[in-house]
Amino acid sequence: MPQPFRAPAFDFASERIDALLITEPANVRYLSGYTGSNGLIVVTPRSAVLFTDPRYAIQASQEVACSVRIVARGPLLPAAAGFLRRLRSRRVGFEKAHLSYEQHALLTDRLPGFTLIPLGPVIERQRMVKSEQELARIRRSVATNSRAFDRALKAIRPGVAEIEIAAEIEYHMRRLGAEKPAFETIVASGDRSALPHARPTSKKLKAAELTLIDMGATEDGYASDMTRVLHIGRPSPKIRRMYNAVLEAQLAAIDAVRPGVAAGRVDQAARAVLKRHGLDRMFTHSTGHGLGLEIHEAPRLGKRDTTKLEAGMAITIEPGAYVQGFGGIRIEDTVVVTAAGCEVLTPTPKELITL
Amino acid sequence: MPQPFRAPAFDFASERIDALLITEPANVRYLSGYTGSNGLIVVTPRSAVLFTDPRYAIQASQEVACSVRIVARGPLLPAAAGFLRRLRSRRVGFEKAHLSYEQHALLTDRLPGFTLIPLGPVIERQRMVKSEQELARIRRSVATNSRAFDRALKAIRPGVAEIEIAAEIEYHMRRLGAEKPAFETIVASGDRSALPHARPTSKKLKAAELTLIDMGATEDGYASDMTRVLHIGRPSPKIRRMYNAVLEAQLAAIDAVRPGVAAGRVDQAARAVLKRHGLDRMFTHSTGHGLGLEIHEAPRLGKRDTTKLEAGMAITIEPGAYVQGFGGIRIEDTVVVTAAGCEVLTPTPKELITL
Repeated sequence: MPQPFRAPAFDFASERIDALLITEPANVRYLSGYTGSNGLIVVTPRSAVLFTDPRYAIQASQEVACSVRIVARGPLLPAAAGFLRRLRSRRVGFEKAHLSYEQHALLTDRLPGFTLIPLGPVIERQRMVKSEQELARIRRSVATNSRAFDRALKAIRPGVAEIEIAAEIEYHMRRLGAEKPAFETIVASGDRSALPHARPTSKKLKAAELTLIDMGATEDGYASDMTRVLHIGRPSPKIRRMYNAVLEAQLAAIDAVRPGVAAGRVDQAARAVLKRHGLDRMFTHSTGHGLGLEIHEAPRLGKRDTTKLEAGMAITIEPGAYVQGFGGIRIEDTVVVTAAGCEVLTPTPKELITL
Repeated sequence: MPQPFRAPAFDFASERIDALLITEPANVRYLSGYTGSNGLIVVTPRSAVLFTDPRYAIQASQEVACSVRIVARGPLLPAAAGFLRRLRSRRVGFEKAHLSYEQHALLTDRLPGFTLIPLGPVIERQRMVKSEQELARIRRSVATNSRAFDRALKAIRPGVAEIEIAAEIEYHMRRLGAEKPAFETIVASGDRSALPHARPTSKKLKAAELTLIDMGATEDGYASDMTRVLHIGRPSPKIRRMYNAVLEAQLAAIDAVRPGVAAGRVDQAARAVLKRHGLDRMFTHSTGHGLGLEIHEAPRLGKRDTTKLEAGMAITIEPGAYVQGFGGIRIEDTVVVTAAGCEVLTPTPKELITL
């Protein structure tokens, strides 16, 4: 079923722009439903045309409800320039973060007498608030991710390497319907759990060590994101205290999520709890981020982020505490802002898993 | 072990350039060894500095032999601009395909009195010819990929869905040491094998159908790429003829690979064989592409590509024939150009696999 074209939330008249050129792949997919790797869109107040190449002709006709132009030879941008010339859309807005210097020079050259107008994250802002259909996809991605975690948990025991656990996790995601992991799965054990971006290695899990697992699936284009921590054997009082502090911070942040609240306030809620436990300086990243067609989207939930939360935003809540040479703890859920506050989509329990 | 910094193959003096700004992630990794997601490099004839953020501080110190600057807050580019200002490198070359309009505007603003000089694929050209260490990594990636194929083969039988086979393949890659698939694994059966970019679906494999598998691993950053076709049950004479024609074309293309030959000649060698079998119009893509840190790199092996092959280039050879509504065949190996001709790295046999 082709996706009905989504009109950009953009006021052509008041911006004095005749046509928008959309080149960022996730934005192209968002507006049109096109999932191929080579595509761009020209939108005017009355029309939308997707440009792609012959490899994707059949796929585009199945995915897309707007017009499609197949560019038989060479890059798409010169063809789009020719189209704009014939349209006489003399004021063309483009995505300034997603058009290269080279592409901009090509357009300038091919569109004499036109005005090219750099635009900020117009479509990214629109993408922050998800539709019902998008939320359904995120829910499915979250469910797949948690189910894959449950299945992979059975393979976790001392002597198994981090990369083997990552392989199990990604295998089950795939089997459950994901097209790929949303990012490189993190499985970090022992003191490696203190590196927030650790890659899984051949290090084997050992008794009396923490293991941090950060994983997400991409299903039907939409991302999920979850972090859980487990411990082989009885955790020490120090680990319990750290774990409980991070969990308390995570619950406080979730509690702070509701429409109208600035993203930075959610971050502050988590940080205040960690401060009370003397762990705020070990919390070296922000509390979360939006997710959807990309694993990292607007809004960011950092200290100073002023974006007001709105119902329909999908975000992660993931405070952590990292002690170099000892270990790290992070607890992360995928959450949707609702009219009343928020709904935690991630069904996986949040107690420290002891094996 | 940090990687020794690779000097760009760039003549600063004759190009009249004081400093190079390298922003493309694979180019950053190629020069410095840095594998994180956020990084850029400023190179002068006498120095090289990698800029990254605090998340990657430990990782960068382990991976990189050049200087490292950790940018505590915000994007890296303003920090790099400040550094360039202090260096007084007034003529700065940048990668015109990899700097956005917005980034270029920022540099122009922050570097008054400087000249910004757009450069083509300087580092990409250098990357075409692989070092011994790079070739060793590609060999390992190819071996992992073929071993994963062998293991996944055991799961292939009628009734198994395409996505389940893709999940098996990617699982074994991971277990064997790959960090991820080099691209979305293609498993396409029946008439879907005629779509060169098919995604695996829940369609089940059936007797008397072709299945096309196109797979690659990324191991230690380096890609491999292989396509094989299998048939459940005794193939028809039509399928045999088509298979043998594509195989003949693939062998002819391999035979044409040697230093000094234009890439287009290799493509023509494959195309001529398919023409003799009346299949040249069913061969809808080019014969191959370079690979390395990226799955698609220079050179391209298309009809009109004039790049001369050189010893040390790693390329794919992958002619195919696609009949809509019937099925498709592609046979692909990863190959290295040698002084004497070429070496086929892919060890997997090339007979039509019948199950």
